[in-house]
Amino acid sequence: MIQSLMQEVPLTLNLVRERVVRLYRDKRVATRYAKAIETATYGQIVERSGRLAAALHDLGIRPGDRVATLAWNSQRHLELYLAVPCMGAVLHTVNARLPADGIAALLAHAGDSVLFVDRSLMAALRGLNLPPGLRQIVVMNDRVADDDRTDSELELPLLGYDDLLAGANANFDWPELDERMPSGICYTSGTTGAPKGVVYSHRSTTLHTLACLFADGIAMRERDVCMPVVPMFHANAWGFPYAAFMAGASLALPCRQTDPESLAALIQASGVTMATAVPTVWLDFLQALRSGVIARDRIATLRRIPMGGAAVGEPLIAGFADFGIEVTHCWGMTEISPLGLVNVRKSALGEAAAADARSTQGLPIPCCDLRTVAATGEEVPHDGATPGELQIRSPWAADAYFDGDQPGNRSQEAAALEAFAVDGRGRRWLRTGDIATIDGHGYVRIVDRAKDLIKSGGEWISSQALEAGILEHPDVREAAVVGKPDPRWQERPVAFIALEEKGRIRNVKAVIAEVRHHLSSHFAKWQLPDEFVVVSALPKGNTGKVDKSALRKGRHANE
Amino acid sequence: MIQSLMQEVPLTLNLVRERVVRLYRDKRVATRYAKAIETATYGQIVERSGRLAAALHDLGIRPGDRVATLAWNSQRHLELYLAVPCMGAVLHTVNARLPADGIAALLAHAGDSVLFVDRSLMAALRGLNLPPGLRQIVVMNDRVADDDRTDSELELPLLGYDDLLAGANANFDWPELDERMPSGICYTSGTTGAPKGVVYSHRSTTLHTLACLFADGIAMRERDVCMPVVPMFHANAWGFPYAAFMAGASLALPCRQTDPESLAALIQASGVTMATAVPTVWLDFLQALRSGVIARDRIATLRRIPMGGAAVGEPLIAGFADFGIEVTHCWGMTEISPLGLVNVRKSALGEAAAADARSTQGLPIPCCDLRTVAATGEEVPHDGATPGELQIRSPWAADAYFDGDQPGNRSQEAAALEAFAVDGRGRRWLRTGDIATIDGHGYVRIVDRAKDLIKSGGEWISSQALEAGILEHPDVREAAVVGKPDPRWQERPVAFIALEEKGRIRNVKAVIAEVRHHLSSHFAKWQLPDEFVVVSALPKGNTGKVDKSALRKGRHANE
Repeated sequence: MIQSLMQEVPLTLNLVRERVVRLYRDKRVATRYAKAIETATYGQIVERSGRLAAALHDLGIRPGDRVATLAWNSQRHLELYLAVPCMGAVLHTVNARLPADGIAALLAHAGDSVLFVDRSLMAALRGLNLPPGLRQIVVMNDRVADDDRTDSELELPLLGYDDLLAGANANFDWPELDERMPSGICYTSGTTGAPKGVVYSHRSTTLHTLACLFADGIAMRERDVCMPVVPMFHANAWGFPYAAFMAGASLALPCRQTDPESLAALIQASGVTMATAVPTVWLDFLQALRSGVIARDRIATLRRIPMGGAAVGEPLIAGFADFGIEVTHCWGMTEISPLGLVNVRKSALGEAAAADARSTQGLPIPCCDLRTVAATGEEVPHDGATPGELQIRSPWAADAYFDGDQPGNRSQEAAALEAFAVDGRGRRWLRTGDIATIDGHGYVRIVDRAKDLIKSGGEWISSQALEAGILEHPDVREAAVVGKPDPRWQERPVAFIALEEKGRIRNVKAVIAEVRHHLSSHFAKWQLPDEFVVVSALPKGNTGKVDKSALRKGRHANE
Repeated sequence: MIQSLMQEVPLTLNLVRERVVRLYRDKRVATRYAKAIETATYGQIVERSGRLAAALHDLGIRPGDRVATLAWNSQRHLELYLAVPCMGAVLHTVNARLPADGIAALLAHAGDSVLFVDRSLMAALRGLNLPPGLRQIVVMNDRVADDDRTDSELELPLLGYDDLLAGANANFDWPELDERMPSGICYTSGTTGAPKGVVYSHRSTTLHTLACLFADGIAMRERDVCMPVVPMFHANAWGFPYAAFMAGASLALPCRQTDPESLAALIQASGVTMATAVPTVWLDFLQALRSGVIARDRIATLRRIPMGGAAVGEPLIAGFADFGIEVTHCWGMTEISPLGLVNVRKSALGEAAAADARSTQGLPIPCCDLRTVAATGEEVPHDGATPGELQIRSPWAADAYFDGDQPGNRSQEAAALEAFAVDGRGRRWLRTGDIATIDGHGYVRIVDRAKDLIKSGGEWISSQALEAGILEHPDVREAAVVGKPDPRWQERPVAFIALEEKGRIRNVKAVIAEVRHHLSSHFAKWQLPDEFVVVSALPKGNTGKVDKSALRKGRHANE
């Protein structure tokens, strides 16, 4: 047996950091703080990251230690994205929308040693039982005034971020890392139970970043100015910060200002070409565009919106197309770093097939294999009709959940073990919990969360298929269908809908009748919702997704 | 220390093969044989690859064994590209332009067990001392007639390729491979000495393939129809076959028909959008376009030419731009799989800077780090002026040359060891032997092969800089400058030039005077060539590159 003779170059984020130094020092990051837009060059950010790493080293941070952030999308958060993994430590991005006790629980579970927190989020920490291992809090955004260096309620010394950098050595000696070292921790949003930790590696994150630059995918380029609106604590802002570094694209970070006017101001000021956020953000934005609240010429540079986080309806795609902006449907999850599918048009598709395909979640990006599996464990055919559970195999997919700072640290809980499957060849697959069909071209259509299927009379009803049908009505703004317990059928579907303004003005009853009529041409009678409840807005969870459990419990605002 | 918890999915070409099966079965490969164009779908090719792997297994081929090809660019060669590495064996693509004894030497050095040979190349094998380890020859292109199953001169049984497939099991069980297993062997062309073997791994080839799809690089897409004219025995046809599989692009393979009319016919028949070959092929093609021998509308689909293998002159770039075809200057070498640099325009460049940058070899693709190093071993500044030896560090760069089928198989020869360097951090770099400058934006300009620098009076003269200057004259078609031994100055530059037809008609002496005048405004007097020799064409080596050693020995055809 002969040996291959190629260089052993580990796939680590230091390749990305060094690339920025060599090629992209002049590219820019703009952050829209509450009062002003601040900009810095990548050269400055890399230099500051070096100081940050040196300061963290002085605070005792060593390879493998966890450093937490509780922060919105900002330049300083970006500096932590570079410094912490590249020095061998692990970046734990805590969801700032969690309740305060949830935050404390995650800091303890991850075993964080240092916490970086936005000044605007400090209030959430007061009165909490912070874990004993947390030995330092660093406050971001502003310099801390001298009389504010301790916080009696927190009983921890406070440092100001810029003070920390000002005192640090500028010549940090970045270590050589192994590609399988952990680089980051992100917890799932916990909409389906307690948050579960995913531990990324340098290898997984570097490969995922390279895949984000795939020409038939996100295709980020040096000429792009990229605005990730999705939070940097949510699955690494869908990988966009690292992708921007590798591609040399400039970044525009909206901090927490995600209303249409704030986003338009940032797009205009920075020349944003590509932006990403969940559909609810874009629904508001599109309405502001249509109503003229935001003039199209203010956002003339915006060309592409890779959109995910929830199903993207055809009206949203068509609505942006009217303004010359291409919406690309994407799909992923925290467990897969998060990108798995991107909807690009295959060259063989005719117009009708292409129109049908573009509302699917898309095609797998390279090195991301997937299959759909029946309850029997058998793969189902790729016929565009047979649903099965979507399972993923990829170098950037999770193999286990995190059991906290234990030796081995793989969660052995029954719930966690059920999230992974093994095929006949002994290969491991992530069970996504999504029910999908795959058509002959490879387009994946998520038809439901496994737990969101409505079981009626021994049959399944797809809540997502009903929602998609309801959303085809031009006066419907949002829709969610949930199962209501039923003594005879076990469950029966109930639809909750929020209307566009003109729908409310016109005649709510007429709109519902039209929706019902439209559905009846696509669904069997027994599949149709028993009730239509009109609400002012659907309740959202802390990641902006519709909170179906709230709907099931009747927690919604009727119109 | 916590562990990362991501899936262990090895980076092997089976990921590429499985992707083709899942997504791209309907894409097509067209091969232009001497008499006709044959087409097949990717689905058929993968199915035939499975049969091929089963047949090779029946012939005794096991993981690590070497399987050689002596073949032009064809569908069957492509099937070998899939079958051999994906079954764990090692594909040795032998340069069909080598002299016959050179071929035999490489078959012996690599320890090949089976050889696949194009029928048109069989003649080269007769009368050779084939190595004893070679136990089977398979003839490609045609079915072997019954009376042709042995070849008395070869004393080896012959098999026909399609007979081999017809008798093979269709359900080959592809093995799970380790990503560091060898996948292929390619020998350098040996223009600078004996051919040196490079042993690629599944990891290096898979990562290189992913990098070929980089949006700011080759950016191959599913909608593309890609025509690699560069031979599949030459650095994996620059990685285009595997890239086409991963991207789902269709392929058009010209076999050995690389004259303008043959290429135009294939472009027209297959709708080629992207093609790649060395500049000499494109010089002929451009002339045929200009003269109207090839009508532009026959090749209307052709949009992009990633071009490399030799410096690409500005007139060639501008010439194709006149026809709406974008030439992208690329750079690589067998030792780096082979892609390292792609010339894309950075957004910050003004028109003048962009014009200057586009004749450079370009910017490094992701995960390909580079530096320029002085004779002292120190890195030189990236100022666009200070030359240094270009060195590469990448997961797809060679770490050693191949010592044949020995344990360890790393060549320990002094010449081979000098091809690699170690930096102060213990990291290994490939020494390219090219002298380059890097400017502040990161653009790399190869100014010379180290061995092509002309040493005159203790100073260096860059032959490539002189060649680039000479090529700026519109009547000059090709140029090469070599050092002529000189008793006083050690060496003095001599320029060999081939003229465009209109230059020959006009007045050869006037053209030379104009060239000399032009050079004198950019070079010191002592740097100017002592002589200008007009030739009908420059001599080429077996990869189409200018053979400077032939020029030094006076082997050229004067006009």
